[in-house]
Amino acid sequence: MPQRPPARIGDPIAAIDTPALVLDLDAFDRNLARMADATAGLRLRPHAKSHKCPDIAWRQLARGAVGICCQKTDEAAAFVADGIPDVLVTNEVVAPAKIERLAALARDATVGVLVDDAANVNALSDATTAAGASLDVYVEVNVGADRCGVAPGPAALELAQRVATAAGLRFRGLHAYHGSAQHLRHPEERQQAIARATEAATMTRDMIENAGIVCAIVTGAGTGTWRHERDSGVWNELQPGSYPFMDADYGRNMLAPDDIAFEQSLFVLAGVMSVADGRAIVDAGLKAFAFDSGLPIVHGGPRATYVKASDEHGVLQVAPAAEMLARNDRVWLIPGHCDPTFNLYDWVVGFRGDRVDCVWRIAARGALG
Amino acid sequence: MPQRPPARIGDPIAAIDTPALVLDLDAFDRNLARMADATAGLRLRPHAKSHKCPDIAWRQLARGAVGICCQKTDEAAAFVADGIPDVLVTNEVVAPAKIERLAALARDATVGVLVDDAANVNALSDATTAAGASLDVYVEVNVGADRCGVAPGPAALELAQRVATAAGLRFRGLHAYHGSAQHLRHPEERQQAIARATEAATMTRDMIENAGIVCAIVTGAGTGTWRHERDSGVWNELQPGSYPFMDADYGRNMLAPDDIAFEQSLFVLAGVMSVADGRAIVDAGLKAFAFDSGLPIVHGGPRATYVKASDEHGVLQVAPAAEMLARNDRVWLIPGHCDPTFNLYDWVVGFRGDRVDCVWRIAARGALG
Repeated sequence: MPQRPPARIGDPIAAIDTPALVLDLDAFDRNLARMADATAGLRLRPHAKSHKCPDIAWRQLARGAVGICCQKTDEAAAFVADGIPDVLVTNEVVAPAKIERLAALARDATVGVLVDDAANVNALSDATTAAGASLDVYVEVNVGADRCGVAPGPAALELAQRVATAAGLRFRGLHAYHGSAQHLRHPEERQQAIARATEAATMTRDMIENAGIVCAIVTGAGTGTWRHERDSGVWNELQPGSYPFMDADYGRNMLAPDDIAFEQSLFVLAGVMSVADGRAIVDAGLKAFAFDSGLPIVHGGPRATYVKASDEHGVLQVAPAAEMLARNDRVWLIPGHCDPTFNLYDWVVGFRGDRVDCVWRIAARGALG
Repeated sequence: MPQRPPARIGDPIAAIDTPALVLDLDAFDRNLARMADATAGLRLRPHAKSHKCPDIAWRQLARGAVGICCQKTDEAAAFVADGIPDVLVTNEVVAPAKIERLAALARDATVGVLVDDAANVNALSDATTAAGASLDVYVEVNVGADRCGVAPGPAALELAQRVATAAGLRFRGLHAYHGSAQHLRHPEERQQAIARATEAATMTRDMIENAGIVCAIVTGAGTGTWRHERDSGVWNELQPGSYPFMDADYGRNMLAPDDIAFEQSLFVLAGVMSVADGRAIVDAGLKAFAFDSGLPIVHGGPRATYVKASDEHGVLQVAPAAEMLARNDRVWLIPGHCDPTFNLYDWVVGFRGDRVDCVWRIAARGALG
């Protein structure tokens, strides 16, 4: 049983129950169009870990996306249950129970997964064969993020060879994602990080192809660096996830003159509960935002700063006093980090102009398994 | 539709799907007993914002709690729907739609709420009267947290007089909670903060009683300071919320020799997905923990440190190499902050010994309205 939706289609924005996760659909549509246009000719497979919402995934597919990414088996299950035909789990799946669930999903959709371990390849092959299914498999290469993945070069080739000969598995190519490059603040830093990743990915792909294995897809990239992967000559599939929404942390990335900017379309609409001495207390705190990337930012008027959060309260400092807020005023807040903020809500409320246009279920919220 | 439960009653712990929120029921029971014993003679009204779980609230009531607290109207609704007979919303409820929902709840249970504004008193009175119900009302006094609440003294008296004469409302007393004192690290700092709060609360209560209004209850306190409120002579109801569970942040509070310590009973059980070069990657990241109070802490072996989180990955540094983890190993992690971490899960898995003893629904998870 999800929580009660905070709004109904057709409601004025003023009637949305706070706090609510709200989406400016015009800005969202422009963001989708901008990315689709800028990546024409390549495969766009947006990351759905950001939104966890099948309704949003369908809109990305309608704009030409080849499928979506997610990071958990249960996230993938939520999208496949909604009919999404092609889902890549950009992660290693190693627990036996999860492998079994993943193999079962692959009967209903095109499902992909990453590997960085030979024993895991065998386990995936066994489960997929037992399920009478077939999994797309990508070798994850560590191109600088130092998280999962094998080293570029021979280790990746060895694993690709193993996948290519394993029953039930289809070797599709390389997953090369430089997560920690996404939020490097200076455009040159991001460009340089992806230049190094490009060398590693190219060398590895060439080594695999020279060994006679088709490496059809090199997939990766995020909202901070996608144009560099696009222009690299090696990636042919891009996975940005935050571009439809943006957040305060991406807003702190400096852009190069020829970078494409995306608009902030995602907000938390909060209500003022109490006021005193230059401060206003809103009803959105630690359970209404993720705080890993800093505090939310007040959008539009008033000149206020979100300075402190507790579980269900946010403290705004308001200056000058002439702009003091009143109880029941609404405040639009930009989340610090969109992905884990989506994960706090059962619903996202889309609006156009001053009306609620849709209330979408965040079906994979909490899908951790 | 909640997510699939990560375990079944009777499962061995090794069969719990990761990541999962798990509760050591023996430690939990000891914590409940310790607090019940230490507060005998006072009213204990544990805060349920920490757990959002009716099954846990029932166990607190069974140990003598007079009711529970929560912070949101929709949280209260989830507990009242489960039959909890007495719920105090330790917050101002000012939005008209929320006031209407709160008044409706007051038909089914004893429901309390805070006020810090005269117009809000009128709105609550109107809605409660219209609903044919009665609300318990507490005047919130700012005793140092500088969040909501009126100043101690005359402002509180004026509001108490207004409540006492308002139809549909029952003036019950003062809410005096010093939230920011809970995590002062040194016991003397906490003691001094509550000593100042005691003066403010005592003066305000006496002023109200001297005006001929019965101020039956002074309620407040948290897991960091409750013994000072207990011993203050003014508080007669205590609201600690984290003591059944504890977390890494409370673990950083230094205790005085005569403080009562509570045991860490709450963990996130994570699984290792990938290993390399002194690091192990677990399946619990930004969506498995709240990070407002810092990173999770590795519990028990191995000698590893959780050093970095991304959406669905946690990076552990493992040293020495001899203790390196393997794929599918389990790691027990202590959340930085228990309240917003509970809010990420649909289920909490209770265990005794090496077996799953219960799987409780976190029914008010995501109840933001």
